[in-house]
Amino acid sequence: MGHVLVQYHSESGHTQEMAVLVAEGAAQVPGIEVRLKPLDECTVADVQWCDGIALGAPTHLGLVPWRVKQWWDGIIEPAWGKIDGKIGCAFSSAGGLGGGAELACMSILTILMNFGLLVFGVTDYVAPRTTLHYGVALPGRPKTRAEKDLCLRLGRRLAEWVSFYVDGIEASHPRNAGYARFP
Amino acid sequence: MGHVLVQYHSESGHTQEMAVLVAEGAAQVPGIEVRLKPLDECTVADVQWCDGIALGAPTHLGLVPWRVKQWWDGIIEPAWGKIDGKIGCAFSSAGGLGGGAELACMSILTILMNFGLLVFGVTDYVAPRTTLHYGVALPGRPKTRAEKDLCLRLGRRLAEWVSFYVDGIEASHPRNAGYARFP
Amino acid sequence: MGHVLVQYHSESGHTQEMAVLVAEGAAQVPGIEVRLKPLDECTVADVQWCDGIALGAPTHLGLVPWRVKQWWDGIIEPAWGKIDGKIGCAFSSAGGLGGGAELACMSILTILMNFGLLVFGVTDYVAPRTTLHYGVALPGRPKTRAEKDLCLRLGRRLAEWVSFYVDGIEASHPRNAGYARFP
Amino acid sequence: MGHVLVQYHSESGHTQEMAVLVAEGAAQVPGIEVRLKPLDECTVADVQWCDGIALGAPTHLGLVPWRVKQWWDGIIEPAWGKIDGKIGCAFSSAGGLGGGAELACMSILTILMNFGLLVFGVTDYVAPRTTLHYGVALPGRPKTRAEKDLCLRLGRRLAEWVSFYVDGIEASHPRNAGYARFP
Repeated sequence: MGHVLVQYHSESGHTQEMAVLVAEGAAQVPGIEVRLKPLDECTVADVQWCDGIALGAPTHLGLVPWRVKQWWDGIIEPAWGKIDGKIGCAFSSAGGLGGGAELACMSILTILMNFGLLVFGVTDYVAPRTTLHYGVALPGRPKTRAEKDLCLRLGRRLAEWVSFYVDGIEASHPRNAGYARFP
Repeated sequence: MGHVLVQYHSESGHTQEMAVLVAEGAAQVPGIEVRLKPLDECTVADVQWCDGIALGAPTHLGLVPWRVKQWWDGIIEPAWGKIDGKIGCAFSSAGGLGGGAELACMSILTILMNFGLLVFGVTDYVAPRTTLHYGVALPGRPKTRAEKDLCLRLGRRLAEWVSFYVDGIEASHPRNAGYARFP
Repeated sequence: MGHVLVQYHSESGHTQEMAVLVAEGAAQVPGIEVRLKPLDECTVADVQWCDGIALGAPTHLGLVPWRVKQWWDGIIEPAWGKIDGKIGCAFSSAGGLGGGAELACMSILTILMNFGLLVFGVTDYVAPRTTLHYGVALPGRPKTRAEKDLCLRLGRRLAEWVSFYVDGIEASHPRNAGYARFP
Repeated sequence: MGHVLVQYHSESGHTQEMAVLVAEGAAQVPGIEVRLKPLDECTVADVQWCDGIALGAPTHLGLVPWRVKQWWDGIIEPAWGKIDGKIGCAFSSAGGLGGGAELACMSILTILMNFGLLVFGVTDYVAPRTTLHYGVALPGRPKTRAEKDLCLRLGRRLAEWVSFYVDGIEASHPRNAGYARFP
């Protein structure tokens, strides 16, 4: 049974709203156990437990906030070289369109790659002109149906990769998706 | 009299619409001469002529399209080490929100930095939740007033830096702006 | 039987030397079939065939050369949404230390992520102060034993992930490595 | 009289060694006043005082360490929108070749761009295969003559841009350099 961790840091509540939806999306895949945890309640054991992680944070200066960096800098000793090959993805809420949310997602993926994870974005569109090629990069909170669907899709895709690669369930591969990937 | 070049590559017409607005914004600054040119009509002499450049392109795979890269790869011989210190910025139109436009802007800035340019983004918001911290990163074409204002602001800011730093006109510094930078 | 593609573009021969070593490293993993192909001889069928790809190119302006971009821009139509979930990694040779090879690796990973691939770097050190956290980023050609080992390790790690995740062979996971990962 | 700030964070001492050399390089340009300060002793007033800043830090997970991010996240309130147009550059020491130092430099430049600064890299080579296109990205400490020269050149180039653009001294432009830029 595949394990998915949704770890998030939130200040205004925007990223938390995203995280709840990402976790909900992950739970749509049969046989996946999901943990939804704020940064402050996460331990290195949570990361070790999971097969896939979605890491979310607000965009601060085009990067993750210092508290997120502090957490991951802090587990270098116990986790380095020991969590390679897990699957990872990113989501971020910025102050506005063009405010650096895509770059913040890339900084999250950079952190995860540095620990040896396999990281991904999603080719799908959830609505016209609405996608998540490097993770979910939102201006503000998820308000519209499409913005919520971005978060759900990210979590679902992460769980699909875990189900396909870790649990070996062929039906979970997105090529077998029962939903529209390119509407 | 400061020189601003707006160089753009467009396929669907979206980036061209942005470029026209960027050039219009640059022309709002007194004493600035503006050239608006599609990539195919640009020569290395245009780049040498200018004091500041705004480079725009559609987002393809989170980066500039190959034709833009071909053009800049092609001027390495004549331009390397000879255009250092000019001022540069970026704009890009992607297929959708989260489609890589910010990353494409960063790839443009990477190219310009490699040639020794001083590159920038803009702190201003032109409307609530609408900014251009790493250049203008749009899903699709500039449709709304705010999206058009992003393009105008980028061109204007480029021209302001050229006017301030190259022409030495203190009044052109954004700290003296007569418009609202943080509405 | 897992399939690994080593696709490379080379101009001076430096990247080709790296590619040969990457392919050799991949072939060290039992049960992996390796294809080593220059860009010009690759077709979209090669990418579809593989389970994992190592993509290598010289560093030009901190990014991939335009020909590499042209190739990948050119397969968007046939490949988009159809190669998601394959495993990818990067290698690049720059003109010098600090010349942008790490950034070029990131531009390769950006391309691959845009197609939905799972991309990775390697935590291991192959010698003191010699690693490949975002792929192999070399100044010039692989000259020293350590620089050659970087290329071998990248190919080997790619093949290990393919063997572990696609072929389901637990013994191939790096945690079971018979070689020193952190010398 | 132009002002240059060299702000650095160091843990092992490697980045401090780099910072001392960067400051020394800046001081080679006549008429430039240089402040060399560890992060902990810097205040927002130092940033406001300077016309150009070189920001250095060790590479942690391909990004700046959390303490550096904490410092810059902490001055958003007093500095946002008020330090636009200053000139900035980056230097970083990583655990090894391929260890993310170039990416860490880009994360520094991302922070500075977010505050509206004009950021740059250097086209020059200080020795064969030794350059600083996105700032100085070193594996370990500056040991060789060439590695030390990278640090000196970064500081010097920053001071040259400040002298040329802020103080208006034409002779300081690198095109008038009395040293070899492409040996």
